[in-house]
Amino acid sequence: MTGGAAVTGGGAVTVGGLGEAGILRILNRRFAAVPAAGDWPEGTVGPGDDAAVVAAPDGRFVITTDAMAQDRDFRMAWPAADPRGSSAGAGGGFAGGYSTGWKAAAQNLSDVNAMGGDPSGLLLALTMPPTTPVEWIDGLAAGLAGAVIHLGADRCRVVGGDLGSDDRITLAVTATGDLAGRPAVRRTLSTGGFGGPGRGGSVRPPADGGDPGLDLVLCGRAGWAAAGLDVLDTRREELLCRLGAAERAGDSGVRRTAALASSAQLRPRPPLGAGRRAAESGALAMMDVSDGLLKDAGRLAAANGLRAELDADWVRSEARALEPLARTLDRDAEDWVSAGGEDYGILAVKPAGTGVPAGFRRVGRLVGRLPGGPAGPEQDTAQAPGGWDHFTGPLRSSRPQSG
Amino acid sequence: MTGGAAVTGGGAVTVGGLGEAGILRILNRRFAAVPAAGDWPEGTVGPGDDAAVVAAPDGRFVITTDAMAQDRDFRMAWPAADPRGSSAGAGGGFAGGYSTGWKAAAQNLSDVNAMGGDPSGLLLALTMPPTTPVEWIDGLAAGLAGAVIHLGADRCRVVGGDLGSDDRITLAVTATGDLAGRPAVRRTLSTGGFGGPGRGGSVRPPADGGDPGLDLVLCGRAGWAAAGLDVLDTRREELLCRLGAAERAGDSGVRRTAALASSAQLRPRPPLGAGRRAAESGALAMMDVSDGLLKDAGRLAAANGLRAELDADWVRSEARALEPLARTLDRDAEDWVSAGGEDYGILAVKPAGTGVPAGFRRVGRLVGRLPGGPAGPEQDTAQAPGGWDHFTGPLRSSRPQSG
Repeated sequence: MTGGAAVTGGGAVTVGGLGEAGILRILNRRFAAVPAAGDWPEGTVGPGDDAAVVAAPDGRFVITTDAMAQDRDFRMAWPAADPRGSSAGAGGGFAGGYSTGWKAAAQNLSDVNAMGGDPSGLLLALTMPPTTPVEWIDGLAAGLAGAVIHLGADRCRVVGGDLGSDDRITLAVTATGDLAGRPAVRRTLSTGGFGGPGRGGSVRPPADGGDPGLDLVLCGRAGWAAAGLDVLDTRREELLCRLGAAERAGDSGVRRTAALASSAQLRPRPPLGAGRRAAESGALAMMDVSDGLLKDAGRLAAANGLRAELDADWVRSEARALEPLARTLDRDAEDWVSAGGEDYGILAVKPAGTGVPAGFRRVGRLVGRLPGGPAGPEQDTAQAPGGWDHFTGPLRSSRPQSG
Repeated sequence: MTGGAAVTGGGAVTVGGLGEAGILRILNRRFAAVPAAGDWPEGTVGPGDDAAVVAAPDGRFVITTDAMAQDRDFRMAWPAADPRGSSAGAGGGFAGGYSTGWKAAAQNLSDVNAMGGDPSGLLLALTMPPTTPVEWIDGLAAGLAGAVIHLGADRCRVVGGDLGSDDRITLAVTATGDLAGRPAVRRTLSTGGFGGPGRGGSVRPPADGGDPGLDLVLCGRAGWAAAGLDVLDTRREELLCRLGAAERAGDSGVRRTAALASSAQLRPRPPLGAGRRAAESGALAMMDVSDGLLKDAGRLAAANGLRAELDADWVRSEARALEPLARTLDRDAEDWVSAGGEDYGILAVKPAGTGVPAGFRRVGRLVGRLPGGPAGPEQDTAQAPGGWDHFTGPLRSSRPQSG
């Protein structure tokens, strides 16, 4: 930020006049707020060189990357706070940048979580046009740092990045993590056995149609981010009209539900630490729910030559809190729960009868056997009855096959 | 590639019909050609899960990321091979995708090289429109794998990635590396001493105007990628006309120089291993030359409170091979050498009189002391007399201050 003008200009100041040096100053100021920012152990190297050097205490590291594009994965016009237009609360004053930064960090931290890891680093590759408001970029950096801080990734640093220019804004965030000596929990069932890795026993693939004895357990909510997207996609005047009508009809909590849902879309809260807890309690396979529960449970199942069944009672019960909002917007709350993505819960497979890890709920099971044996992750769309594909658009959304 | 149609369709087949699963199949087939692709040690996890788990044998890893945007950092219409329009040679049949993939890999492998590391992994975050030709994406993946193979990064795997849709293509590549127990060589002068890290002694900052005793040494060429960009930016008819005239005037090698220069731009060859060699021979500071020798040498100097002087004789001698091409295109070969970026050589600082590492040449020295002491990397543009800034455009290009 070159002097106070960039802060107080209220969106009029753009990055074009700053050059890379000025933009870097803005980003680095925000990233310095991360608790671990100042703490670079002997032998490691922080941002500012050609590359960073990050500690990997157990001789391995978890790594993942995600790209986000303007108007596809985020929108410049998204509100910083709730759908009533207030800019109070976290992110006020940063316009949509804060939420975009938060979400970019959250979805990558979630991937580390999904392997059972603890986040250690974030990298930001950012392209943007010279006309990008400085306020938006400042918000982006604050949101990225905010997610690290508020989601509790307290050993995670921003370790590097790259700036480039383009006609539109794209971000690619890379996250790294530590496993602290634990085996990673993969999508394919661990052969370490029912008691968890290293405790003996072996996975018995279920016979055709037989009881598989494999429960699907979830930590985190489902459907709220999808509901939030529908709230955010409704024109403001229409939204206020519909919310008012719902309140007059007796749905007194619908305005608060709408606010919570849009917050779930704008600033998702992956349950960091849940992946580690599931791993420690003997989860055999695991992933995060980013593209919708049906699609992702289908992927988890297909990777093991099985099918996923969601528990229809659970879907109904999970949908209950969203029903008034769904009525208000002419949507289906059970669709939100079963096919809606971006809540970033942790979906794990546990042997039936071995208990549910703290913070998790049983949401379904794995059954049967697909013809042709286990499928790789790239062969999953045929088995996925709902959710989102970036290139073909929405996949067929259907009610869960009840279990 | 879903059947032979996508291969033989000659650009008519687009990614829109494939879905993420089909695109992943294309990418993974190419990445499987990397020598280390099948070799995942115990405890590590390859692509296909939420995140990969990569070995870091000495308990640390090097990490860097770079973003590339269509029409800024690469062009869809770029030829696969040389400026005569032949599609023979590496990359033939892949259109511009091959060069784009190669370059994205090369510039990230170069950043690992610049810390003294050996590349261990690449991640690809890719956004593209559904109208992107399958051939182009197949070429992108082949080029990425091709760079890993032909640049000799023989322990580097493609460890993961992400796909998203956007109106234009952007790539963000992340690279990781091993230091095998060596200290990283940074832009700031090592305090480990003249004899190299751990060999005692200390760096003596030069007195004002005094002899600094710090040589700048370079491995790799300078100016060829910039010359290549000018070749590629010249209309084909005009280029052929100018090359013909130059040949008739006696510059018999100019056509070959143009081909080599455009190849240097399209498929740069960072000297992998040079960073490690410089580190082992006692380099005190190091970086790669991505934005131009004057700008990057200025950065290296400014990070230590010093100024960089390029050796005018060296610049003249390095420019000699490019002179006929420069005459042909009405450009200045010494400008290419001193201000042109993207050759990805390794620029290192050695104590004067301690010898030049194998494959390096002395190109200048560090002198004097800037007011205010060492500057961070974000404060460097004021000191950098040439090169490129993504947001303000070309910086002032001037002749090197002769040393």
